[in-house]
Amino acid sequence: MKLRVDLLDAELGDLRVVFIPQKVAEELDLIPGGKARLYVNSRETTVLIAVNGSQGKVLRLSKKLFKELGEPKEVDLKPHIVPASVTYIRKKLDKVKLGEKEIFEIIKDVVSGVLTDVEIAAFVSAQLSVGMDINEIIYLTKAMVGTGNVLKFDKPVYDIHSIGGVPGNSKVSIVAVPTIASAGIFIPKTSSRAITSPAGTADTMEVFAPVEFTADEVTELAKKVNGFIIWGGTLGLAPADDILIKVEYQLRVDPVSQMVASILSKKLSMSVQNLLIDIPTGREAKVESLKEARNLASLFTQVGNGLGLSIRVGITYGGQPIGYAIGPALEAREALESLMGKGPTSVREKATAIAGLILEMAGQAPKGAGKKVAKEILRSGKSLEVFKEMVNAMGGNPEVKPEDIEVGKHRVEIKAPMDGYVTGVYNKPLTIIARAAGAPVDKGAGILLHVKRGHKVKEGQVLMEIYSNSAPRLQEATKLVSTLKPISIEGMLLETYPEYV
Amino acid sequence: MKLRVDLLDAELGDLRVVFIPQKVAEELDLIPGGKARLYVNSRETTVLIAVNGSQGKVLRLSKKLFKELGEPKEVDLKPHIVPASVTYIRKKLDKVKLGEKEIFEIIKDVVSGVLTDVEIAAFVSAQLSVGMDINEIIYLTKAMVGTGNVLKFDKPVYDIHSIGGVPGNSKVSIVAVPTIASAGIFIPKTSSRAITSPAGTADTMEVFAPVEFTADEVTELAKKVNGFIIWGGTLGLAPADDILIKVEYQLRVDPVSQMVASILSKKLSMSVQNLLIDIPTGREAKVESLKEARNLASLFTQVGNGLGLSIRVGITYGGQPIGYAIGPALEAREALESLMGKGPTSVREKATAIAGLILEMAGQAPKGAGKKVAKEILRSGKSLEVFKEMVNAMGGNPEVKPEDIEVGKHRVEIKAPMDGYVTGVYNKPLTIIARAAGAPVDKGAGILLHVKRGHKVKEGQVLMEIYSNSAPRLQEATKLVSTLKPISIEGMLLETYPEYV
Repeated sequence: MKLRVDLLDAELGDLRVVFIPQKVAEELDLIPGGKARLYVNSRETTVLIAVNGSQGKVLRLSKKLFKELGEPKEVDLKPHIVPASVTYIRKKLDKVKLGEKEIFEIIKDVVSGVLTDVEIAAFVSAQLSVGMDINEIIYLTKAMVGTGNVLKFDKPVYDIHSIGGVPGNSKVSIVAVPTIASAGIFIPKTSSRAITSPAGTADTMEVFAPVEFTADEVTELAKKVNGFIIWGGTLGLAPADDILIKVEYQLRVDPVSQMVASILSKKLSMSVQNLLIDIPTGREAKVESLKEARNLASLFTQVGNGLGLSIRVGITYGGQPIGYAIGPALEAREALESLMGKGPTSVREKATAIAGLILEMAGQAPKGAGKKVAKEILRSGKSLEVFKEMVNAMGGNPEVKPEDIEVGKHRVEIKAPMDGYVTGVYNKPLTIIARAAGAPVDKGAGILLHVKRGHKVKEGQVLMEIYSNSAPRLQEATKLVSTLKPISIEGMLLETYPEYV
Repeated sequence: MKLRVDLLDAELGDLRVVFIPQKVAEELDLIPGGKARLYVNSRETTVLIAVNGSQGKVLRLSKKLFKELGEPKEVDLKPHIVPASVTYIRKKLDKVKLGEKEIFEIIKDVVSGVLTDVEIAAFVSAQLSVGMDINEIIYLTKAMVGTGNVLKFDKPVYDIHSIGGVPGNSKVSIVAVPTIASAGIFIPKTSSRAITSPAGTADTMEVFAPVEFTADEVTELAKKVNGFIIWGGTLGLAPADDILIKVEYQLRVDPVSQMVASILSKKLSMSVQNLLIDIPTGREAKVESLKEARNLASLFTQVGNGLGLSIRVGITYGGQPIGYAIGPALEAREALESLMGKGPTSVREKATAIAGLILEMAGQAPKGAGKKVAKEILRSGKSLEVFKEMVNAMGGNPEVKPEDIEVGKHRVEIKAPMDGYVTGVYNKPLTIIARAAGAPVDKGAGILLHVKRGHKVKEGQVLMEIYSNSAPRLQEATKLVSTLKPISIEGMLLETYPEYV
């Protein structure tokens, strides 16, 4: 039935609920809370029905959904029928391998909104409990690329990507990308905002410059500089990813097949041909054992090769935070210091190791000598120079100094309760505390560590500082320190370590 | 934050969306489409947030949710935290066995509304793809009983239950229950309304008498008669079941662990001690092979025994509809005829076989002679007499005659396109056609078969009639006959049979 579109006086976020009059509901045999198919021109999406007391042939929806549908004046509402993709999801739950067309159909229906969150949850669950083989992951990746935009460039495209999971990691790309670019290698890095971490690379880069660009603006950027770091969210690359991630986040699951497909689809959508994957490995990282890391590396390589990508994987240490700073502004400051040749050794070591592998892939350094060449570039000041060009091209202030970067105006020091050696600096508690302090939305919020594993401390010595722009948030974050125990000192480990999610 | 409750001018069905002013959302750090915890006294439930332009400390919700929450004047809204049960669901997806407390926590959160449909979808998916062992199904059943009402009676309780899936099956209980009751056996049968079939036993029984009773009314009924057939939906028995079924229905899945737990929990909530399970087996039934039926029988027996139930399982033929009538009124008429000793042999055979097994369990017939005794009861008119008492006690008209039962006022005859033998009368197409005609909501809608498998037909002979009270629905149902081919005649089978969901 054709219905006139009107706006609702309410925001519903991602809820696809539309309001229709009782009479329309009756005529279409629709019930409150039930599903219906909504057509805008020939594009189909599934909506949930709310029935209100209004009159006429009108459908009310939220401003967000209105925009997503392309601001239609009129829509066509029809009774729900079960899409074929639900049958394919059920097949996967029944442990049947899916073919290319079936996976494409599922992803197409994810993107268009034909599949509801409940059905997507079953798809994600099936990936976790049944799993996908190499071919299925290849199909999944292709489908995710094929249902979104693809940006093209007129030169070979390189990129680096860390699977994340370790706080403080976002600054690595900020040091590595200009180092790679200064060797004449084109690296248009798309990055993500934090979902569960204190700072995504995009959040940290945004401290220096805007990170949201249109496809045309990206093309222009590519003409000006060889490297940049932008947020991938506005470019419509592999849009299935965002929808799937929201459901995964609700279920607190992250199936490996979906992770591999998500990463590779975003990269293929940027026409990346040569990719380095970083797998931080260690206690409380996404990958905890070397064995697991090797399996994942092999999976990335097989799937990547199946998709025509030249791919290398670096397994790095992720058993404690990278460097000392956690949170966008604090990490931005540490990254800038690293580009100036200062700051913690560990950041410079990791960034040059990553950059070195790309230099080798691009033939800009002999095999095994990449890190040495990268270190030389960083030491010479070339990385910093290219970083300034990059910030300038992106619309930021290239002359910013570390001390110009504003961090949270409230600050608390956490001190050592006893003498001893630091036996652990833990990723998960630090992540929870930094987020409680306000990161990543409050760019100044976060943690500055003063110690790392193995350091000797005296009672009363500062172990870490927590920063925030909100006094109540800082208080809440500080309270978490005593329950989550983010830093342990020899002797403290006798007590059991609490569980956290 | 304490919020005053107000009613929304819209019906939302099962959607747990609440509307709050922008200012409240900001203070609680809630986003549109996101989750929050809602407390009424100490009872917690999860709601989804919509933000509107209103003022003050007010929360607006649908009348349905308002009732479910006990019509509170004030509620307490808090930011969402991930319930522990989500962690247990994730464990199950990771193929870890769950303990009794973990499963109880999941089911408790299903019933209270703490778990959302997305999370429940993951739980159902895990049951399908990972599976549950005997102990887990026992825990699941116990949890489902423990989170609902339990009715007690002062005499031993017997019951029969068919797992369903075969059209025309609802009349079997209507013949079997009075036959069992007339032997002095107490059988307070709770039954369900159709979800995917053309008629649940409750839908068909409702043609004779009201089927909705309160717990107190059931206690009164039990004093008057030894047997009755009521709808279980109003008694608050194992309320998790309804919520889980709605999600299973959306995903078109029916995990065996959940099916067993659902059936047994409903029965244990009625204090059933002695149970007969009927597994109709055959092409297009829920269970297609005898091997599968035996496995399921063994599962029911092991779980039932683990729960202290005395249980027997009958495997019956379900490869075509039971009897000739499909749909509430048509089946009610055929059931009444069967009670009068008329109607199709197959209905009387199945009903007495089922009743006979209960007679044996209750010691009212020697082992192996139950069916013979049941047939004698039916033939003697005692079943009909007890049925009339039962209808009378339930508030219906005990003197109703088969010809008094109104069937759909519109009717179409489907005729044989050729001479030959009937090679198949198919459950799934007949179900779809009967539902398209309006069953079970339109009680008069359905199908009256004129032939069964093996019958010889002449070209132009009537194969079946479709009934409906709606002319357009009848037309739609009739159109489906040519595509779904519900009855095949020798020679027709050369063409491929279409797929249907």
